[in-house]
Amino acid sequence: MTTRIEHDLLGDRKLPQDTWYGIQTQRAVENFKITGVPISHFPELVRALAMVKAAAAKANRDVGVIEPKKAEAIIQACDDIAGGALHDQFVVDLIQGGAGTSTNMNANEVIANLALTQMGHQKGEYQYLHPNDDVNRSQSTNDAYPTATCVSLQFAAEPLVVAIENLKTALHNKGAEFADVVKMGRTQLQDAVPMTLGQEFEGFAVNLGEDIDRIHEACRLLCEVNLGGTAIGTGINTHPQYQALAVRYLAEISGKPIVPASNLVEASSDMGAFVFLSGMLKRFAIKLGKICNDLRLLSSGPRTGLGEISLPPMQPGSSIMPGKVNPVIPEAVNQTVYQVIASDLAVTLAAEAGQLQLNAMEPMIVYNLLNSMRMLCEACSMLQTRCIEGIQVNREQCARHVDNSIGIITALVPHIGYANASRIASAALHSGSTVRELVLAEGLLSEGQLDRLLSPQAMLAPHLEP
Amino acid sequence: MTTRIEHDLLGDRKLPQDTWYGIQTQRAVENFKITGVPISHFPELVRALAMVKAAAAKANRDVGVIEPKKAEAIIQACDDIAGGALHDQFVVDLIQGGAGTSTNMNANEVIANLALTQMGHQKGEYQYLHPNDDVNRSQSTNDAYPTATCVSLQFAAEPLVVAIENLKTALHNKGAEFADVVKMGRTQLQDAVPMTLGQEFEGFAVNLGEDIDRIHEACRLLCEVNLGGTAIGTGINTHPQYQALAVRYLAEISGKPIVPASNLVEASSDMGAFVFLSGMLKRFAIKLGKICNDLRLLSSGPRTGLGEISLPPMQPGSSIMPGKVNPVIPEAVNQTVYQVIASDLAVTLAAEAGQLQLNAMEPMIVYNLLNSMRMLCEACSMLQTRCIEGIQVNREQCARHVDNSIGIITALVPHIGYANASRIASAALHSGSTVRELVLAEGLLSEGQLDRLLSPQAMLAPHLEP
Amino acid sequence: MTTRIEHDLLGDRKLPQDTWYGIQTQRAVENFKITGVPISHFPELVRALAMVKAAAAKANRDVGVIEPKKAEAIIQACDDIAGGALHDQFVVDLIQGGAGTSTNMNANEVIANLALTQMGHQKGEYQYLHPNDDVNRSQSTNDAYPTATCVSLQFAAEPLVVAIENLKTALHNKGAEFADVVKMGRTQLQDAVPMTLGQEFEGFAVNLGEDIDRIHEACRLLCEVNLGGTAIGTGINTHPQYQALAVRYLAEISGKPIVPASNLVEASSDMGAFVFLSGMLKRFAIKLGKICNDLRLLSSGPRTGLGEISLPPMQPGSSIMPGKVNPVIPEAVNQTVYQVIASDLAVTLAAEAGQLQLNAMEPMIVYNLLNSMRMLCEACSMLQTRCIEGIQVNREQCARHVDNSIGIITALVPHIGYANASRIASAALHSGSTVRELVLAEGLLSEGQLDRLLSPQAMLAPHLEP
Amino acid sequence: MTTRIEHDLLGDRKLPQDTWYGIQTQRAVENFKITGVPISHFPELVRALAMVKAAAAKANRDVGVIEPKKAEAIIQACDDIAGGALHDQFVVDLIQGGAGTSTNMNANEVIANLALTQMGHQKGEYQYLHPNDDVNRSQSTNDAYPTATCVSLQFAAEPLVVAIENLKTALHNKGAEFADVVKMGRTQLQDAVPMTLGQEFEGFAVNLGEDIDRIHEACRLLCEVNLGGTAIGTGINTHPQYQALAVRYLAEISGKPIVPASNLVEASSDMGAFVFLSGMLKRFAIKLGKICNDLRLLSSGPRTGLGEISLPPMQPGSSIMPGKVNPVIPEAVNQTVYQVIASDLAVTLAAEAGQLQLNAMEPMIVYNLLNSMRMLCEACSMLQTRCIEGIQVNREQCARHVDNSIGIITALVPHIGYANASRIASAALHSGSTVRELVLAEGLLSEGQLDRLLSPQAMLAPHLEP
Repeated sequence: MTTRIEHDLLGDRKLPQDTWYGIQTQRAVENFKITGVPISHFPELVRALAMVKAAAAKANRDVGVIEPKKAEAIIQACDDIAGGALHDQFVVDLIQGGAGTSTNMNANEVIANLALTQMGHQKGEYQYLHPNDDVNRSQSTNDAYPTATCVSLQFAAEPLVVAIENLKTALHNKGAEFADVVKMGRTQLQDAVPMTLGQEFEGFAVNLGEDIDRIHEACRLLCEVNLGGTAIGTGINTHPQYQALAVRYLAEISGKPIVPASNLVEASSDMGAFVFLSGMLKRFAIKLGKICNDLRLLSSGPRTGLGEISLPPMQPGSSIMPGKVNPVIPEAVNQTVYQVIASDLAVTLAAEAGQLQLNAMEPMIVYNLLNSMRMLCEACSMLQTRCIEGIQVNREQCARHVDNSIGIITALVPHIGYANASRIASAALHSGSTVRELVLAEGLLSEGQLDRLLSPQAMLAPHLEP
Repeated sequence: MTTRIEHDLLGDRKLPQDTWYGIQTQRAVENFKITGVPISHFPELVRALAMVKAAAAKANRDVGVIEPKKAEAIIQACDDIAGGALHDQFVVDLIQGGAGTSTNMNANEVIANLALTQMGHQKGEYQYLHPNDDVNRSQSTNDAYPTATCVSLQFAAEPLVVAIENLKTALHNKGAEFADVVKMGRTQLQDAVPMTLGQEFEGFAVNLGEDIDRIHEACRLLCEVNLGGTAIGTGINTHPQYQALAVRYLAEISGKPIVPASNLVEASSDMGAFVFLSGMLKRFAIKLGKICNDLRLLSSGPRTGLGEISLPPMQPGSSIMPGKVNPVIPEAVNQTVYQVIASDLAVTLAAEAGQLQLNAMEPMIVYNLLNSMRMLCEACSMLQTRCIEGIQVNREQCARHVDNSIGIITALVPHIGYANASRIASAALHSGSTVRELVLAEGLLSEGQLDRLLSPQAMLAPHLEP
Repeated sequence: MTTRIEHDLLGDRKLPQDTWYGIQTQRAVENFKITGVPISHFPELVRALAMVKAAAAKANRDVGVIEPKKAEAIIQACDDIAGGALHDQFVVDLIQGGAGTSTNMNANEVIANLALTQMGHQKGEYQYLHPNDDVNRSQSTNDAYPTATCVSLQFAAEPLVVAIENLKTALHNKGAEFADVVKMGRTQLQDAVPMTLGQEFEGFAVNLGEDIDRIHEACRLLCEVNLGGTAIGTGINTHPQYQALAVRYLAEISGKPIVPASNLVEASSDMGAFVFLSGMLKRFAIKLGKICNDLRLLSSGPRTGLGEISLPPMQPGSSIMPGKVNPVIPEAVNQTVYQVIASDLAVTLAAEAGQLQLNAMEPMIVYNLLNSMRMLCEACSMLQTRCIEGIQVNREQCARHVDNSIGIITALVPHIGYANASRIASAALHSGSTVRELVLAEGLLSEGQLDRLLSPQAMLAPHLEP
Repeated sequence: MTTRIEHDLLGDRKLPQDTWYGIQTQRAVENFKITGVPISHFPELVRALAMVKAAAAKANRDVGVIEPKKAEAIIQACDDIAGGALHDQFVVDLIQGGAGTSTNMNANEVIANLALTQMGHQKGEYQYLHPNDDVNRSQSTNDAYPTATCVSLQFAAEPLVVAIENLKTALHNKGAEFADVVKMGRTQLQDAVPMTLGQEFEGFAVNLGEDIDRIHEACRLLCEVNLGGTAIGTGINTHPQYQALAVRYLAEISGKPIVPASNLVEASSDMGAFVFLSGMLKRFAIKLGKICNDLRLLSSGPRTGLGEISLPPMQPGSSIMPGKVNPVIPEAVNQTVYQVIASDLAVTLAAEAGQLQLNAMEPMIVYNLLNSMRMLCEACSMLQTRCIEGIQVNREQCARHVDNSIGIITALVPHIGYANASRIASAALHSGSTVRELVLAEGLLSEGQLDRLLSPQAMLAPHLEP
């Protein structure tokens, strides 16, 4: 195998000639093996890195700090990578020291070598186009990397929002399907007052749907980038017109409404937008978890639980108990939820660890966010297609619950008072009689009144007449 | 001491005649002793409860479900309590089972008894005005309590926002005061490139200031209330026009833009707005923590640390080491930050524990949020007045750091290339020579070029000409 | 009111003559107002501080570095405080900067002034006995304070262990009471195989009981103290024999098997024993939470839930729904659990924030641990007396569940095979027939075989014969 | 490609004939895609599963519930898998619903098919040897899976303990190497009193070393297994002698001192041992994080930080700042630490979510624990070989810090009193004079006294003579 020799601050290193990355990437691969998950695991991050580099090259060309020929070669290489080329060359572990320098250099080196070959040179002939002097021109890891991560997270939000929309629709459809199923509502797991199963599922749909706006809001915060700030936000080594151009090009290339951060020094170390996004993902996860908990409660049984709904069976439930079918899909979602909540803590810890002009822990912030978004996306899709869409209602059980319940006495309170109602409820519980029987026996209300007050219309919506 | 006897579902109970609360409050006091912190610890919560009850009474009066005389007595009692009366009668522990029922009944009972005495009756003569049938009319704990908490959190946000504003101003003023102090920026605790101390403090100001908007945003989400949903959001036992009236009255009384939630069933169990607020408080806390960490780093020394700034001494630092002055104020803030982050976890755990039509853990969510807001408020104020405003710069140290640094070579990269610059930086480190000396010795740049490239103007802002 | 003037590094300060603390305490009171909770809130901490100071005074006397007369006065004052005197003079907020210096000085000053008056001097006449030179002799905050906290946590563990023992006994008694109640076990909320309610409660008892050992283990780690290490563990300013004597005296005074840490430099900044204890409290809290969740599930209903047990009603459950009784005690315990889990995070964050020779965040570690222990103690006691001891079984419901269940088919698997059993289970579910009927109909087993295999003896314990 | 058809409760499914797993594994692969990490990612888990199945087969053989020929075939297949065979057939995602049923069935199916082929049958001919009836005989997922995880975690602890030992040795060696380097200790980042750099590194070694015992302790708790409890701990469908035999065989095969849990019902849902282990991993992570924070502080600079040590350069530090070398290895460790702390939260959340007779979230508990152990193992090894072993001291800087410091005045306090010392320290700070100069000028001590009191012997160890 042919090899080439590359050189950096620490000395020489031999590389196989067919690797597109260079010496700094190679060192990072050797240094960092914590997760085993390479950059290429998240194609949206590779794409975003390429777009940032292209935007910088265009701006550098415009302000005249790199030759047009070099600029065009860089831009072409970035386009190819953004389009899917050479992703397997983004090999550094996502958890890395150096605040993303290794990721940035991985991009710089792959782009440089791709551009070099397109210019007719050999890989490694950096005298013609240099990873630092040319590809990284007017940039530092400290602005190029956070900017790329902001863009990549917006890319990652797209399929997540779609998955939430689809899940919401599935829940909404079930809400419509179950609109006429009257059942008992429960508060604190104790029988409360009637509602419809349709209201329950529609409530789920509304609940999750609200978070689509929240995620969009998080994406808006991610649009403020520190590109042009270079090392610490002062813009050292940039042309006065570079920042505006680079940001504008990035908006154009990425299709996202990217704007410059108002204070680049502040933006260089600020993790606020990541913390915000992480918080929104956690919020969504909490909601998803609550819904899955509810699904598991409502489908508990089949004979000794609530048993109001049946989840579609996805696999035999037990290696020892025949016929057992478990709520495996909601359970898997619940576990995903815990993982996302835990990731929010990882992000929190890393965000709090920023020091002075930088936060060196950004790589694991980005890793956790991209991971959480992917897991949530998968969880929503799994829940929609393998659970929600196949849920069936057990109408008899729902009706039996309402008929037997004591909670319906609530509807009589405005007419017989809280004290009378409490006494009768207590008597019903201990005697096994129904509320209706006891109220009639005491002559508190007539049959006609009871029929009217305990009808679904009266119990399912604001109804009271003075 | 005279006593009165009250009665509820579980039996009779004797109460001292001078207590304004009733039997259900008394039971709750006996049941719950976890924190030792009573409702009255947070006057904003007592005020909000009174306002919700007043709004409900006005709406009940308008739709005709309670007599005007009773309604007026309730409204008057609520006004008095919102104005500060009888707060010491809100005695239930903030961590309580029952999803807030005890807090709601504490309010119902105190209001009923205050209204009764104002009507010329004795405390406990509930036949004239009843805590449940009248004060709680058209309400459930499950709508009245969450609505009151939403209002109380908005009240609590007011002094917090003021405290953040004041802290931001103090930081901004220091930014202006230190605008001409050139110092070395640091990334990953390693010498980077120059900046001004003014930029550093202005960055702090901007960073914190951004969260004022975030907190306002959280408050907007808290404006959507489920008042009128009663037990589970179906509005059982309310008049069809009650909800709209009650919410409108609440907006009027509280002065907040309160609106009805779009889906009351969903809103009854949804903790999303609390999770959002908690996440924003955590975000702000993380930022505050990072700034305090920086202050402790920058003031480390006095002789063996960074020593660029001096914090005002607030107390002797050591019981054994004379003359030692410690950064006690930032340290106290850091601890507050950890407490707030931990509270966000408490809120997360509680929010995830909702079941079916209600979240029974809301009391501790509210406790943690109110507590975090109060602690952050105090921390901001402490940091502003006892630390930031008294910070002094050590100009000689800042200048010495810049003069000795190797990082300034970054400014030469566009002119001598990254490879040359790396080599010279390495030589400087090992020889103890300065960058300037080595560049001159190698003849890479002239003295005049060096003077120009290493001037503050060149290093502190985008400057590069092609 | 008479006043005295005290002096420290930062200047003079006037104090009311009747305050027992001095100038440094006063400054700390003004500086720190985050929690509003003073040291005296935890009498075990005040006692432990006094014991450490007494032990140091005895050792100092023995090695001859303070006069016997002064030593005796200090020892007497400490004894008085350990016995309950002057606790209200321990006024500093528990969250404080300075790594506990303010708490240590609060102790030094109160002890000095109490000793002074017992020697016939006035408070503040430190020329006769000095808070630093005498009371704090051979000590630093950095060894005296952590040592006191280690002792105080062991004191706090005592009532907690008693509360756990009592709760365990209550659960064990219920286990015995319900030993003959056959019911369905559930896995993943789905009907599994039979068990007894007694086994369920005995399981709870065993589960919690295991943690008593874990807490004792945590206390053993807390016995290794850094007393004698002074400022950073090098023992500067101590007599070579001081450490051994001081630690031995502390063991004697506290009644705890206190020993010196093996490496004092390491011990000065190590928070490991606190993290261990916090982890054990969290572990216990998780178990407590799981049990309370189970109690709420098992008592769900009364008509539309599992309804196998009834919790004793502690208060009316609803302000709108008459007769509703909620599981308020388990709910309050669950909330306590979340608070303790959150406190563990606070401890984690603080422990990770140690820097070089000290961890400045120890005050909030101690605050969280003492708070968690007190809350857990209260929660156990509340759960025992207000819930567990009053639980009643609903025998008919338990029996009905077993009779109707499909899960009992598991007991037939060794005889009819997993595949047959699966098929029959499925048929039972869809037809509504019982397992027994279907097996008989298919002729897979005789009535006699079924009677034997489905008897409690066969289903409740290992039984299978080849 | 040839295929075979398999059948389960839910119907038929076609499988490629060369897959060793069966229909239930196939369904699980389709159901769960959250992490993308299959069981085989953790070979210790595959090995442990095979060992549990072998132990069960031996016990089943001994009590006569399966034919010896079948048992031997199962045992042989398990041996092969424990030895490394067919790991790539363990394909189910680690986060799965069903409480591990899919993992258990994956093992049952692969073992059955391997045994079948070794018996001369075709894969899928389960009439000769059945995954459930034979391989899973006398077992449920609910005992076999937790038992296997307990064993696998002990396997995973082995390399971790080795990695910690090696790291400890490296730190200890540096402690010896730096034993004579006097430097300033720092508390709260402020100059305190002298120590040696050797003490600092030896402190690190001791600190980490303590956790080896804690991890062993955690492993001891993992030795109590619920094997034999089957579905819910009652041992349904097992022979009375099975449990004792199976556990004894497992101890023999695994080489670990496995014992039966004292209460199998309790053990079936108890996550206590996992929570304990997770807490210990977190404790270790916190310590590791603190050490890495210290390394980054001590190596800060090179010109504007503490600069007392130099970490070995592992890669160029910046894409823009030439010559910059960053503490990339400690930074990567810090991020690992955050990930482990976050995983502990995931474990906490899952452990708290147990319901009744089982905890369905165990799969993600195990995933997080195995992941954390692997990451910590890698982090320790990386830190040892790529950082600690190459650390160099900057002796001049250490000496300069001591000479210039004010903190050394502490050593004079027993001789000149705290008040005098405070005054002189303050004067030194403001005048720039040294402590020695000012004490001499005031005539408080003679030169000879100062020489003696400020000598390393006097300042580095307990020394005081009365």
